[in-house]
Amino acid sequence: MVGLGKMGANMAERLVQGGHKVTGFDPSADARKAVAAKGVAGADSLEALVKALPAPRVLWLMVPAGKVTDDTVNALLPLLAKGDTVIDGGNSNYKDTLRRAALYAGHGLGYVDSGTSGGVWGLKEGYSMMVGGDAKTVDALKPIFETLAPAADQGWGRVGPVGSGHFTKMVHNGIEYGLMQAYAEGFSILGHKKEFGLDLHQVGEIWRYGSVVRSWLLDLTTDALGKNPTMDGIAPYVVDSGEGRWTVDEAIDLDVPAPIITASLIERLRSRDTESFSDKLLAAMRNEFGGHAIKSEAK
Amino acid sequence: MVGLGKMGANMAERLVQGGHKVTGFDPSADARKAVAAKGVAGADSLEALVKALPAPRVLWLMVPAGKVTDDTVNALLPLLAKGDTVIDGGNSNYKDTLRRAALYAGHGLGYVDSGTSGGVWGLKEGYSMMVGGDAKTVDALKPIFETLAPAADQGWGRVGPVGSGHFTKMVHNGIEYGLMQAYAEGFSILGHKKEFGLDLHQVGEIWRYGSVVRSWLLDLTTDALGKNPTMDGIAPYVVDSGEGRWTVDEAIDLDVPAPIITASLIERLRSRDTESFSDKLLAAMRNEFGGHAIKSEAK
Amino acid sequence: MVGLGKMGANMAERLVQGGHKVTGFDPSADARKAVAAKGVAGADSLEALVKALPAPRVLWLMVPAGKVTDDTVNALLPLLAKGDTVIDGGNSNYKDTLRRAALYAGHGLGYVDSGTSGGVWGLKEGYSMMVGGDAKTVDALKPIFETLAPAADQGWGRVGPVGSGHFTKMVHNGIEYGLMQAYAEGFSILGHKKEFGLDLHQVGEIWRYGSVVRSWLLDLTTDALGKNPTMDGIAPYVVDSGEGRWTVDEAIDLDVPAPIITASLIERLRSRDTESFSDKLLAAMRNEFGGHAIKSEAK
Amino acid sequence: MVGLGKMGANMAERLVQGGHKVTGFDPSADARKAVAAKGVAGADSLEALVKALPAPRVLWLMVPAGKVTDDTVNALLPLLAKGDTVIDGGNSNYKDTLRRAALYAGHGLGYVDSGTSGGVWGLKEGYSMMVGGDAKTVDALKPIFETLAPAADQGWGRVGPVGSGHFTKMVHNGIEYGLMQAYAEGFSILGHKKEFGLDLHQVGEIWRYGSVVRSWLLDLTTDALGKNPTMDGIAPYVVDSGEGRWTVDEAIDLDVPAPIITASLIERLRSRDTESFSDKLLAAMRNEFGGHAIKSEAK
Repeated sequence: MVGLGKMGANMAERLVQGGHKVTGFDPSADARKAVAAKGVAGADSLEALVKALPAPRVLWLMVPAGKVTDDTVNALLPLLAKGDTVIDGGNSNYKDTLRRAALYAGHGLGYVDSGTSGGVWGLKEGYSMMVGGDAKTVDALKPIFETLAPAADQGWGRVGPVGSGHFTKMVHNGIEYGLMQAYAEGFSILGHKKEFGLDLHQVGEIWRYGSVVRSWLLDLTTDALGKNPTMDGIAPYVVDSGEGRWTVDEAIDLDVPAPIITASLIERLRSRDTESFSDKLLAAMRNEFGGHAIKSEAK
Repeated sequence: MVGLGKMGANMAERLVQGGHKVTGFDPSADARKAVAAKGVAGADSLEALVKALPAPRVLWLMVPAGKVTDDTVNALLPLLAKGDTVIDGGNSNYKDTLRRAALYAGHGLGYVDSGTSGGVWGLKEGYSMMVGGDAKTVDALKPIFETLAPAADQGWGRVGPVGSGHFTKMVHNGIEYGLMQAYAEGFSILGHKKEFGLDLHQVGEIWRYGSVVRSWLLDLTTDALGKNPTMDGIAPYVVDSGEGRWTVDEAIDLDVPAPIITASLIERLRSRDTESFSDKLLAAMRNEFGGHAIKSEAK
Repeated sequence: MVGLGKMGANMAERLVQGGHKVTGFDPSADARKAVAAKGVAGADSLEALVKALPAPRVLWLMVPAGKVTDDTVNALLPLLAKGDTVIDGGNSNYKDTLRRAALYAGHGLGYVDSGTSGGVWGLKEGYSMMVGGDAKTVDALKPIFETLAPAADQGWGRVGPVGSGHFTKMVHNGIEYGLMQAYAEGFSILGHKKEFGLDLHQVGEIWRYGSVVRSWLLDLTTDALGKNPTMDGIAPYVVDSGEGRWTVDEAIDLDVPAPIITASLIERLRSRDTESFSDKLLAAMRNEFGGHAIKSEAK
Repeated sequence: MVGLGKMGANMAERLVQGGHKVTGFDPSADARKAVAAKGVAGADSLEALVKALPAPRVLWLMVPAGKVTDDTVNALLPLLAKGDTVIDGGNSNYKDTLRRAALYAGHGLGYVDSGTSGGVWGLKEGYSMMVGGDAKTVDALKPIFETLAPAADQGWGRVGPVGSGHFTKMVHNGIEYGLMQAYAEGFSILGHKKEFGLDLHQVGEIWRYGSVVRSWLLDLTTDALGKNPTMDGIAPYVVDSGEGRWTVDEAIDLDVPAPIITASLIERLRSRDTESFSDKLLAAMRNEFGGHAIKSEAK
């Protein structure tokens, strides 16, 4: 396990619980120490990690997408031997995955992508994994996926050639944006209907059983509403982590209309655009043609 | 039970299974016969139904929203006595419910609204019910809701005064539009990525376990994809049944931005606008300013 | 002229300039005094106004839509005589216009609606007027419209029966929302491309001549950018005045997909929703499933 | 002038009308012959064109964006000498322009981008040109731009360094998508209000004078409605030519919310997605949870 952050540490732990022998690397000694307590052997460098593994080696990368993944993939390349396989379990852009897989294939190395969903709950509930790669290579990795998944035959599968796992996970996250936004809008409408005095946490609880909108995200949303019904102290500031915009790009490239996944991304951008230039300009335009008053900016 | 269609018949049956004595009315003799086989007594008129019930009576309306509900509510009014209660379990607009409840209150009659979710699955899994009404009145109806719900203490609750149940159900359906659209767009993107040859049914199955997007709607969507992976023979024509547009109206009235619930409704309108005038005009405009060719309509 | 605010005063003045005899009423003595200087006779009550006019009378209402228009229409009703005509030149909802016209028709009075566009520029450039009403009645009013319009045969017309003028103006304003939003977004994108250091006022000026996007709104927008290129001191707070939401309602009622007029309205709502509950809830959800940090609200 | 298609031929003609000496190249002999009649000298190869021009040469490229532009730029490179300048007047992606300009700069050659708007009307009315490039280089080209523009000091300007011209034109086209969509939706709403029997061409004519929505695009739209009020025979199929999607990409990259420019692009994709998979799936989902009938596809 390369990368022992929130996700990597939990996955290593679940693998150990499932009877696997796992060695983990992370530049942070604290991160290594934390997993050691869970039965994960530690390696303090990629070299040490590779040496510690019996051939053919399997390395699961759980590091930030982009530069860190590139650096790791490049650093591992000279250390590995024919027959070794790297699984990128992070949120890489599938185009990067295709590029890296081609590099590895040129050296006789296996490269597999596992789009991994489950967040902080995966340790307990198992991870949903969309796996891309050569069928034979993936087949050899079955014991890993069967342990990480909620059940041996549930929540994971090889969906296609290398790249297809990250592609599928990207779209998964695009859908997630839409689902989250749908609940958020709905609860916001409910909360604004002051005359009914609705208890949003109670409504969420009711919907969790028997309703058409029941879902795991609703469970979590209801939980959040129980802890903080008025969202007191929380800034209306929503981060996006890449997959949403990649999904939008891809939809456009494929000529697929995806109005609400796109609108969900735009709302996240909007949440962070607190000094919207376009809205200021709209106010100025209204003044120009209609003499409508402009609200002054609070200082 | 007034109205023994798909929903009413199932609810009557679930009540009987739960030990309640139920008499049902429907203008159709066939509908009455069908529920008789499940232990539901039949009445061939509203008058007969009211006579068959012991006072104080409880009547659950499960009839189409709008005119039919109005007609039923008006027809029942002179037949009922102080202390009787009518529960509108259909998809009425909450503004109509407020009006009808005021009428009934003027005659000393109880009026309760139950926004009811669960569709054809409710018989087996129980219904999710958002109940609006006077607290004392709703309290007296507890045994009914406890039986119809997935469990006595799950999936139902009094959310506020009369009208609030239908209001909450309306927003529930607005959310449902958004959730459905999110999945639909996501699967459409996946299916258009020909080079990965994804099996959409398999992807849905993977996501059902451990993923962030797991939900009951995903279960159903996956089921639909299993039966007909290419959606062969299905017209791209999506009906909307009212609650979606009411939710959009309400969001605007409350000054709540609801971009994706709104966009989900618009996509349904768009699905039925196969001869889009605006798109034709756009094509004509492009020809006007740029001399771009116009595609002729297929005859 | 009933109502001597910004619009009414200018229209009265333009009529006087065109050789018409105009008497104006406004509850404010200052407003009456201001137009007196332009040659508009004053009346200090509706009664006095009606008395001052020769039969058959023509009264142009330029008062706020809604309650004020209703009050005025009702107050005038007993004062008028068969053959008199009221023109509502304001931004009334066409459904209100239909109702008021039916009331007047019942008393043998003419009722005409003129959707009026032009804002503060109309005095100089003339007004664009979409007129609804009985063909004969509108025909008799021609001299008025010919004077108010940019030219006798330009910028005005009877578009259909009573109500159709306000309906057309409503849609006009819906379009206006879309046009404004398109420019606002475009200039915002330009301004965010820091490395090109674009001068937005200059770009607007270039586009005003020869480009596909040239328009009167662009002229005004460019003017606003010239005065205040950074929109300094202007709050990103955009008012909507009714016609936008009516257009959206109407589009939905007619099953016409109007995605961008709708989105333009929603952005105005969003501009005023600075403490977005839905965005707070999204941030809370991300924390629930992924342990993602929540930004605290600034105090 | 390299490229004598619709745009290039017109621009060459306008330059000749303005007193410039112009030689044009196009692979098509017919295209060369057509401009010859307008006073444009012909060259039957790039080599011949370069030889025909006095140093320092100025070459205006008016060829399709993408591969053709790349091929042309590459073919010209060895033919040109220090001090020569190429102007790309087409709709190139500004990122390509930056790349090509860097290549040319490495050889001491000037490279200027002119985002050019005006379509088929530019010959008569002049072109709007957003010019990017080195200030000194652009300054030397002034006589060209002053002739092509609607007036010497109107409708053109150097907006910034090389690339900024195409960037600005890209956003211009994004705005254009939004404006067009706004008008299209508005006229569609008007046309669907059958009871008012509105004449859309007449409404457009009224709006052209004095209204807030008057614009050149409205002039063209009205013209189109005059020729074909019902859009008879025109397929609801709207092409997009690249700048719209680039604008959306760029907005997302810059974290600028651009909801309606984006929605306008999506509507164009939607217009071509006549067998929408997502709508079929929505219909299937409704059947799954509610037993709602599915409409069969027309054969």
